[in-house]
Amino acid sequence: MTDLKQKIEAANQKTIEIILSGSPMLVDVAPAREVVPGMTDNMILHSAPAIAWEDMCGPHKVGVIGAALWEGLASSPEDADSKIRRGEILVEPCHHHDSVGAGAGITSASTPMLVVENTTYGNRAYSCISEGGGLRLLKWGAYDEDIAKHLSWQAEVLGPVLQKAVRASGGIDVKSIVSRAVQMGDECHNRTVASTGLFLKELYGPLVDIDGVSDKDLLDSIRFMVEADQFFLHGIMAAAKAILLPAKGLSHSTIVTAMARNGVEFGIQVAGLGDRWFRAPANPVNGLYFRSEWSDKDAAPDLGDSAITETVGLGGFIQPAAPTVQQYVQGSLQQAIANTQEMTQICAASNNDVRIPAMDFAAAPIGIDIRKVVQTGIAPLIDTAITHKEGGLIGAGEVRAPIACFEQALKAFAAEYMQ
Amino acid sequence: MTDLKQKIEAANQKTIEIILSGSPMLVDVAPAREVVPGMTDNMILHSAPAIAWEDMCGPHKVGVIGAALWEGLASSPEDADSKIRRGEILVEPCHHHDSVGAGAGITSASTPMLVVENTTYGNRAYSCISEGGGLRLLKWGAYDEDIAKHLSWQAEVLGPVLQKAVRASGGIDVKSIVSRAVQMGDECHNRTVASTGLFLKELYGPLVDIDGVSDKDLLDSIRFMVEADQFFLHGIMAAAKAILLPAKGLSHSTIVTAMARNGVEFGIQVAGLGDRWFRAPANPVNGLYFRSEWSDKDAAPDLGDSAITETVGLGGFIQPAAPTVQQYVQGSLQQAIANTQEMTQICAASNNDVRIPAMDFAAAPIGIDIRKVVQTGIAPLIDTAITHKEGGLIGAGEVRAPIACFEQALKAFAAEYMQ
Repeated sequence: MTDLKQKIEAANQKTIEIILSGSPMLVDVAPAREVVPGMTDNMILHSAPAIAWEDMCGPHKVGVIGAALWEGLASSPEDADSKIRRGEILVEPCHHHDSVGAGAGITSASTPMLVVENTTYGNRAYSCISEGGGLRLLKWGAYDEDIAKHLSWQAEVLGPVLQKAVRASGGIDVKSIVSRAVQMGDECHNRTVASTGLFLKELYGPLVDIDGVSDKDLLDSIRFMVEADQFFLHGIMAAAKAILLPAKGLSHSTIVTAMARNGVEFGIQVAGLGDRWFRAPANPVNGLYFRSEWSDKDAAPDLGDSAITETVGLGGFIQPAAPTVQQYVQGSLQQAIANTQEMTQICAASNNDVRIPAMDFAAAPIGIDIRKVVQTGIAPLIDTAITHKEGGLIGAGEVRAPIACFEQALKAFAAEYMQ
Repeated sequence: MTDLKQKIEAANQKTIEIILSGSPMLVDVAPAREVVPGMTDNMILHSAPAIAWEDMCGPHKVGVIGAALWEGLASSPEDADSKIRRGEILVEPCHHHDSVGAGAGITSASTPMLVVENTTYGNRAYSCISEGGGLRLLKWGAYDEDIAKHLSWQAEVLGPVLQKAVRASGGIDVKSIVSRAVQMGDECHNRTVASTGLFLKELYGPLVDIDGVSDKDLLDSIRFMVEADQFFLHGIMAAAKAILLPAKGLSHSTIVTAMARNGVEFGIQVAGLGDRWFRAPANPVNGLYFRSEWSDKDAAPDLGDSAITETVGLGGFIQPAAPTVQQYVQGSLQQAIANTQEMTQICAASNNDVRIPAMDFAAAPIGIDIRKVVQTGIAPLIDTAITHKEGGLIGAGEVRAPIACFEQALKAFAAEYMQ
């Protein structure tokens, strides 16, 4: 038993070293079919964990069907539905393809992807580019002609423009952007305004120096990004995934390597337990609805891969870095600080690269240890959007991961390592 | 006496209304000779209050002589000195020309100026464009061939590029930038990183769409601004001056309309007392020296017009908005909050447009009332740079305004209004 405990401590220390030494660089932008491992033209990805088509929540169903129509894989929603049931259109979680998707996480072969390379370990991870602001986006499980038109513009114009600029930049250091953005009011999940600004600053030179793009396309691209205050969230998500991937499968580690929600179930992965998901029903989100017509009864349960940010100690783990986000939950700075202190109790380490100004630059907690979650009964706190159960963004707030996921994982860990 | 008190209260309320309703828009960039009221080709401006040439501090002397050489007004430092003494080169404070200058505030006829219009009242104010980062700049009272070359590049390339972009933008709302930047870790004096980022975002479209500028000049301009983290401080200073100018001369008002330091004396102006400066010896700055070779004995006393930011309730008045700045004074968030609470005691109002995240979005104090300063003995707290007594930036920290300025002003106020 002592031997096992030592092995766990050593494995966890190694996991933390891997996570903290990760160096995520945005190196490319390209259509999913060209870069995402295992991606095929007839495949549509969604936020994890995996779920049967008939069990999917509204936003996922609308989003997957929307993507099928946009890609020309189906002629009607009914056609898409039947092709999905027949397996002619494949539906899989982003996480199974080294990818992460915000909200419904809908990603198809033509979707322009941010490609983040963890240069310390040579692995890559991916996330679609942001569709910008607005309540009705494919990522929120909405689809109509305007959305389709915008997706096509992103694939045909913005994606190629970004590809040229990112390649010309020689790589954009996402870790450095996150470190600085946390000093500028971002917790890097529900608020990425500063991150986006810092990213745009890095792109300024490359974008102006770009060749082979019409003035109109360049200006349209810039105007879109300047107005999309949270544009860089997806870059941070891909960076988080890129940082966590090298820890996957590390024997004896009890550190969480993924948290994701499909609007029905919340799932976690643990370093020492490889690709397995440990699931429990997703919790409702506590937060602010953006219009008075919306209330709890309209909301889908917790949804999206964006909890990958909390998995690397951002978002809900560093709420005091972004007091503005407290406004969604009628919170206060004191409550935010208390929340971070709580998260510190379930984490294995602290991250000197992410320092919280309002806590006199305390290093952020990082590395969720499933043992600590179960022992303390403290569930990870996640900042998140609220999606309408039939699609569309309707609010933002915070949610707790279900403790049951961690209990199951710990049980599986015992079965795996205590034989 | 009660009648006087009522008149003061009414005048102060009016002053606060004027300040809070100001709407500063960056509308143009142009050489000082073309836009600054009263500017002539043989004039060099410096940070206020006015001071005799022989009494000036080192940074001012070096800066004024440097500007004379750069403008071709003199052939050598000795020539400049003698022309200044003979009155062939005029040396006056920025503030006397509706302008404000950071540090030594050196501004000559060819200096590209940010032109900020207070659209509520139709008046304008001015500040030179930033020379960027670095310890050796004309604004810090340094001058050599490299500095001269950079000034020429700014006048010949950056100024015209910015002019085109700012004009094409249709005006950039400085108040909105400040409101948002305070949510992003800027106190808008010693830290303007977020403000600069937001300003650059506004310029993105206009800069890319610019005509009649070579690719090289455009790229050089963008690279310079992207690297100059505090570029927009001067825009905020001009905006503060533009906001305060309409209050100047408002009968019976005890609200401060300017605070400025020339490295020898600290001076204030008061709305009800017009253009008069009330002076006392400038205090030494308490802060961090950027190299171990520097210490208190190297430092010039408090210097620069940038305390115009505190005059509108930014900078040292909202330290908790920028915990990073506390690092200069080995401070803490708690100390920063205590400082803001102290400043609240000497201010006449609070500013709903500037809300401090780390104080649960408390509105910032604004409008220094000389009566309250004298009654409480609390001196305004100013975030500021530290200049070497022979020129050059050597540190940053904070400093108190001398109470004596406020005592003198109150005495003058009594003489003016209590006859």
